[in-house]
Amino acid sequence: MSTLRVALLGCGSVGTEVARLLTEHSSDLEARAGTRLELAGIAVRRADADRTAAGVPAELFTTDARTLATRDDVDIVIEVIGGIEPARSLLLAAMESGASVVTANKALLAEDGATLFRAAEKHGVDLYYEAAVAGAIPLLRPLRESLAGDRIHRVTGIVNGTTNYILDRMDSAGSSFAEALEEAQALGYAEADPTADIEGYDAAAKAAILAGIAFHSPVTSADVHREGISGVSAAAVARARDMDHVVKLLAICELSGDGTSVGVRVHPAMLPRSHPLASVRSAYNAVFVESDAAGQLMFYGQGAGGAPSASAVLGDLVTVARNRSAGALGPGESWYADRPVRPIGDTQTRYHISLDVDDRPGVLAAVAMVFAEHGVSIEAVRQRAYGPDDAELVVLTHAARDRALAATVDGLRELAAVRDVLSVMRVEGE
Amino acid sequence: MSTLRVALLGCGSVGTEVARLLTEHSSDLEARAGTRLELAGIAVRRADADRTAAGVPAELFTTDARTLATRDDVDIVIEVIGGIEPARSLLLAAMESGASVVTANKALLAEDGATLFRAAEKHGVDLYYEAAVAGAIPLLRPLRESLAGDRIHRVTGIVNGTTNYILDRMDSAGSSFAEALEEAQALGYAEADPTADIEGYDAAAKAAILAGIAFHSPVTSADVHREGISGVSAAAVARARDMDHVVKLLAICELSGDGTSVGVRVHPAMLPRSHPLASVRSAYNAVFVESDAAGQLMFYGQGAGGAPSASAVLGDLVTVARNRSAGALGPGESWYADRPVRPIGDTQTRYHISLDVDDRPGVLAAVAMVFAEHGVSIEAVRQRAYGPDDAELVVLTHAARDRALAATVDGLRELAAVRDVLSVMRVEGE
Repeated sequence: MSTLRVALLGCGSVGTEVARLLTEHSSDLEARAGTRLELAGIAVRRADADRTAAGVPAELFTTDARTLATRDDVDIVIEVIGGIEPARSLLLAAMESGASVVTANKALLAEDGATLFRAAEKHGVDLYYEAAVAGAIPLLRPLRESLAGDRIHRVTGIVNGTTNYILDRMDSAGSSFAEALEEAQALGYAEADPTADIEGYDAAAKAAILAGIAFHSPVTSADVHREGISGVSAAAVARARDMDHVVKLLAICELSGDGTSVGVRVHPAMLPRSHPLASVRSAYNAVFVESDAAGQLMFYGQGAGGAPSASAVLGDLVTVARNRSAGALGPGESWYADRPVRPIGDTQTRYHISLDVDDRPGVLAAVAMVFAEHGVSIEAVRQRAYGPDDAELVVLTHAARDRALAATVDGLRELAAVRDVLSVMRVEGE
Repeated sequence: MSTLRVALLGCGSVGTEVARLLTEHSSDLEARAGTRLELAGIAVRRADADRTAAGVPAELFTTDARTLATRDDVDIVIEVIGGIEPARSLLLAAMESGASVVTANKALLAEDGATLFRAAEKHGVDLYYEAAVAGAIPLLRPLRESLAGDRIHRVTGIVNGTTNYILDRMDSAGSSFAEALEEAQALGYAEADPTADIEGYDAAAKAAILAGIAFHSPVTSADVHREGISGVSAAAVARARDMDHVVKLLAICELSGDGTSVGVRVHPAMLPRSHPLASVRSAYNAVFVESDAAGQLMFYGQGAGGAPSASAVLGDLVTVARNRSAGALGPGESWYADRPVRPIGDTQTRYHISLDVDDRPGVLAAVAMVFAEHGVSIEAVRQRAYGPDDAELVVLTHAARDRALAATVDGLRELAAVRDVLSVMRVEGE
């Protein structure tokens, strides 16, 4: 039986698990790949770190990632370093040296996937990246391969575990955002600097990758409209609960009605509790896919963590090994459609707007007039006493363009009777 | 660009949709497969049936399936006839003639998959069958490929839409089994003869296929312990609701603790409402997978229907076409582990037992003694008045072997104080 040699770049939480599974599951991997997989080396930043957890011989560690990635006897390079550089240079060098590549690097793929795909094509090697989106959940392969004969028109995902944990606590325990964030940090679900998660940067990178695969068009992080959850108040979550909805940070990729452009956005939204995504609790991820023939599909699982991400990396590794043994290549990038990303202003969604208004006759008429002026149609209105002489006015709109809604909110702020715009949130899933 | 020629065997609800998608999505399919896909012919049983719905030229129809399947110019054969014969002979003949095969035939794969796999290997062709289990849900490919580096230890599926619809109605509307079945038939979710669905034969075939893939061992329908839902009473569903559980028909494939054998069973079971499978409503399917590294995963979608199944067939078709163009083969069957299927008596689960007993002192002690005699440990007991001089006694056990539980139930029936065993149901998901 032949042997393929594997270089592992990075040995953090994912890399350690990759090394462990490669060792512990070696006979299963051999049976499934049809070839032996041998660890050729592990590139680490500091040589002195304790690596006993990985259970691999000390002589396999090196601090010279570039030499390891470009070694003649290395067939497959696994990159779990993360970030743009040096990961990009290392992967490009590895592919130039003829190695196929498996990476978990969402930031790099979302920012500059095109460069990687071009390199893979030029050098005739595989580039797989299942672990980059939604961790352990088999998602990219089903979208790329299982649905290859179908037409996807919408992908709606909960792709960031940190924000889902925070919003779930705010919903189920009535916590404030700050309390829930603190709890998430204490449990290790949120980093000390949680910006990338709570401001939606992590989800936006994943949305870009998903949109590219679903709609066969290049999409980068910069194309994604992004709003985080730091502005979501306990009151907004309670308002959602009042109408049997839950607030989730959603990554939404959608094809325009005529199929000529795509919209990609990440923002908090209210979702009916009956929606399959509404029951995704704690730090779990799930991705809801709508397609012409298959209809509604959902994929659910752990979106992060060493072992779950390593599971996805090894699945890719087995496929790449099989391809290499057969002298074949996987499907690769398929951006044949090249649909432009449309501006957020053109996006149509329903909105839930909560206003603090004077409690006197004529206010509802004045508010309704502002909506009408901007062509935003109202589905429902509810008013209730708020203070001694003010009221909370909740307006639910029919689907309206983002641009028109933004102008409506500006108009509302100028109304004398409107004391404050308490919250504006999109409503999805109906 | 090269062209591959496709023969379609069968033109019922799935075949019609396959023909439609092949025609309507032809340019997308070409971009994804990297080759043109041309419909070479469609085999139908009766030449006189109206085929205009498929939107394909009349001259493509033939009643001679065998000649079509073995034509020299046919590269790929899609089989959506169903049943054992003539499907098996046609697929074997097609593979012998060098064609790769895509089939949706769960009955054939579950009864005699080994013969098909051997033929595919012998003739160096692909055999794909995503549509055979859980219709549109990308499931077999993720299990075979995405989780190839992981170790699956349990697969729990709702894989029959008819029974899920019936049980969902019994739970949500309080219907009797007969009422819910009638409703399912009126809506087209159940056949006029519903035996294959409600007695669990359909689910058992899917369980056999899933177990084979998850545990790399040959499993056939005959190996699957099977109980249907016709014995599930409205009272049993209400009892489940009382403890915040829901009754589902589950297909369960599990690896023994030491990894040397597998258990495969289909039966109704109580599941906590908080379990991800509990919220699967109507005729939807979902499969919950537990593995070492990935942890818990769930795949959700439509399990049947023309268009959903056609989506899965076309996904396979694109892969087979890509493989063929590259001169490569997909992973094929991987029954390298050859683990035996253990008897149902060895299965350990928790049980919910409801008894009609005399309402007098000492009865609980007598009942508890029977459980103790068979080594079945009790987790909880609840007793409530049932009639003027009798009571309902509900016993929830800790995990016990099926064999011990069956003996316990026999013992209970012999107790003078036990008037009737009202229901015995497994409890899963904790």
